[in-house]
This record gives sequence, structure tokens and C-alpha cells, in this order.
Amino acid sequence: MKRVKLKVAYEGTQYHGWQLQKNGETIESQLNLHLSALLKEDIQVIGASRTDAGVHALSNIAIFDTSHRMPAEKISYALNQRLPEDIRIMESVQVASDFHPRKCASKKTYEYHIYHAPFPNPLIRNTSFFTYVDLNLSKMKRALPYFIGTHDFKSFASIHSSAETTIRTIYELCIDEDGPLIKIRITGNGFLYNMVRIIAGTLLEIGQGRMKPEDIPEIIAACDRSKAGPTAPAKGLTLYSYEFVDGEDKPLHLL
Amino acid sequence: MKRVKLKVAYEGTQYHGWQLQKNGETIESQLNLHLSALLKEDIQVIGASRTDAGVHALSNIAIFDTSHRMPAEKISYALNQRLPEDIRIMESVQVASDFHPRKCASKKTYEYHIYHAPFPNPLIRNTSFFTYVDLNLSKMKRALPYFIGTHDFKSFASIHSSAETTIRTIYELCIDEDGPLIKIRITGNGFLYNMVRIIAGTLLEIGQGRMKPEDIPEIIAACDRSKAGPTAPAKGLTLYSYEFVDGEDKPLHLL
Repeated sequence: MKRVKLKVAYEGTQYHGWQLQKNGETIESQLNLHLSALLKEDIQVIGASRTDAGVHALSNIAIFDTSHRMPAEKISYALNQRLPEDIRIMESVQVASDFHPRKCASKKTYEYHIYHAPFPNPLIRNTSFFTYVDLNLSKMKRALPYFIGTHDFKSFASIHSSAETTIRTIYELCIDEDGPLIKIRITGNGFLYNMVRIIAGTLLEIGQGRMKPEDIPEIIAACDRSKAGPTAPAKGLTLYSYEFVDGEDKPLHLL
Repeated sequence: MKRVKLKVAYEGTQYHGWQLQKNGETIESQLNLHLSALLKEDIQVIGASRTDAGVHALSNIAIFDTSHRMPAEKISYALNQRLPEDIRIMESVQVASDFHPRKCASKKTYEYHIYHAPFPNPLIRNTSFFTYVDLNLSKMKRALPYFIGTHDFKSFASIHSSAETTIRTIYELCIDEDGPLIKIRITGNGFLYNMVRIIAGTLLEIGQGRMKPEDIPEIIAACDRSKAGPTAPAKGLTLYSYEFVDGEDKPLHLL
């Protein structure tokens, strides 16, 4: 028996999110289906980040155990032959049998993309949120430093969040402009349910002058979801990278 | 009666190219259908560049005549309400009644995107050509200057090309690397049928060591399609911009 870690990329448009649902395809259901067929065992993956419907990933993480003798690093190639083309395994490696992605210290980076122009760009319509409203980018940028550091982010968590603690650390938050594409990039040790989308929604409020950059400390201190901006649409969000800080995921070269 | 110029963006994946076909939807058929419904006239657009099936555009050009009293610049908004979301009108303006996009001096810029990694990126699977083969980028870049200038590009035209002359001028040709994404950008006064895809295919041959950068002058001089590389797949190609050199397309402010 060995434990295998997958790095999974997907366009979430066609799926009901990561997590198994009674009705509708999910990333998890697709992985379980095709892994089970490939390895001729009943495989149930465990995901690191349960992304919502419409959210994308370049690097989400899943683990599973198998007694199949296929070398772990070959599984990516074989599984990609079976998966639909909007899901791809970027890497498969063997990890320690007690490695669990949600029980390891990790650094996650998300990007939220806003396409800011008079009309939507059809080439990135599924991976960006389109808006034509006036946005004051320099005000949005002035708000960023207030988020950095360790805070109770309860104001930026969906009320449906079931997290034990709402304290999280944000290492980096920046906005890059690539022509009409505004890229909000955020790195932290973890994110509450909808946290990145609520931060993006709050920055959009600031960009439109409905909130001020200087309001952020007060919004954080309130620990009240209703003080922050709305949850920005799912399609603009992509999980970019998932890094395990203490390296428990290093592949075991036992084969 | 007025002549209206549209700037049209589309993801070409779901279409049989620009030009009307007996079977299958095309960009032209969609524009005719929805413009005719909107303006309550039989509208037949004339396109500047008849892109192939699977090729995309951020800025293709179409013109049509209408006697409808809707101001030209409002047509983009109204038409975007009707078009499928993979086609968007980025601009609509009135132009001189004798303006014809294929009879004007113009500068066109295309990009050909190659996603060069072990596995495809699902987020850009429709707008880039994926390859995992070894590519020597510096060799590919060394080939670029040979294409610049005015040449007979017969070797880089599909044998199905019906152009009167195969002489074209390339103003700029460069390769930018954005992580694993290789962007070939080319600007010229016009391109023969499949010319950008054959140049991309030839650069890919050079990157794999099957041709040499220094072979390009000889390939051009041969005026023989069989001397150049294969035609790279359509999905990697996007028409980025279309500029009319002498400004005949300047909107008429008569309204």
C-alpha cells in the first residue's frame, strides 16, 4: 500500500465544485471515477482545498492510498488519458503514508482576476470576472497592506464557514495590472470559506469609492461579515499554488 | 444608409471559422443572424480576416450597411445582448460609406501561443498549443530576424491560397516567454493563408533541432511550401489587433 499525492489543475466552469455532491459532477467525483477504473480499486481521494463551483485551480492537492503496483509518478500520465480535458494531473508522487494535506503547515496562493474594460473578453470569460464600472486602482492598492499579517478574519468569512478558528496569516497581497486585466494575488497560511472572494469583493467596493482603504482595520476588528464587501463571483478565482512548508510532501524515493 | 465597422472578439473553438458555411455555425453566420434580428433588415457583414476553424480573435473587423436609425456606437451594446458569450463586439463605429477593410492598407498582429510543459494547462487549453517536447528557445529566437522585411512568402502559404501576390511585409516578429507559455508575436501588412501557423510550425521544427535558424533565407527563397515546417494547430492562433494605416476607419462624427 502506498500513499500518492496528486497536483490537480482544472477549469471549474463545468463542475459543482471540488467536493462530492449527490447530484452533479465534481472534481472529486471525476478523480474517484477515473482513478478507480485505472487502478482497479475503489479509490476515494482526500482533497486539500474544497474549491467552490466555478472556481479554478492550477495546483490543488489530493491524496489517496493504493496497493496497485503502478509507480506513483506514472499515474499522472495514465490518469490524464482518462480525465476530461478540463482536468489535468500536473504531478503524481509517492508521499509518507501519514502525510495529510489538511494537517500540514502550508502556503497557498490564489489569484482573483478582474477584466476591466467596456466589454468582456471572450477568451478569458470563464476565468475572470468582467466589470466595466470605474475603478480607482490606486485606492484599491492602498488597502492592501492592512490585510497583511495575522488577523482574525471573521469579517471576511462566509457565515457558513465551519472553521474552528478564524485567525489566519496573509503573507502577501498585491495587485498587478496586465492591460485591462487586474490580478489580485494573495498568499497565506490558509483561507476561510469564501475569504479570497470577500477580500476581492471588498477591494472592488473600495475601487468604486463605496468603501475607503482606511476602513479595512475597522472592518477586520469588527469580526462581522456584514461589514465587509460582497463575495466576488467564483469564476474570477484560481488556486495558483499549494506549498507544504515543512516539506512532508517530499516524494519518497523507495521504488 | 450608413456603414458600420465592428471590432469583433471571439473564441473560435465552437465555430467552423469566420466564413459562412453550408453546414455549421461560423462567426459570420452569428453576426448576420443577430444583426438582422436587431436591425430588422437582412444584414450581410464583410469580414477583414477570414480566420480558420479554431482560430481566435481579439480584434477582427467586419463592416455592414444599415438604414436603421440606431446610432452606430450603440450597436455594440445591443448586439452583445444577443450574441453567444464566446463572441463579443468590442466597438462599433460609423465609417465612410466607401470604407472596405480588405481594400485598405493595414497592420495586423497575431499571436501564436505554445504551452510548453509536461502536461497541458486546462485553463488555456483552447487558446494555446500544448507540447512537452524539448524546445531550444534561443535557436527559435535566432530564426526571427530572417523573417522581418518584405519577402515572397510563397513557402509559408498553404497551397490552397488564392492570393494574387505572395509578397508580404513583416514588421515585427518576437518570442516572449511567460513561464511555460511561449508567445510568438507577429505584425505585418498582411498574411497569406495559414502563413502565421506555418511560421509557428517552422519555428517549432527549429526548436526541436530538425531545422536550423540559418535555413530560413533558403526556405523563403525556394518559394516552395514543402521546404517550410508543418502548419501548427489552429487553437494556438489569435488575431490580436487590426489597424488601418491611413486611418480610413476613423469614425465619422455626423450624428
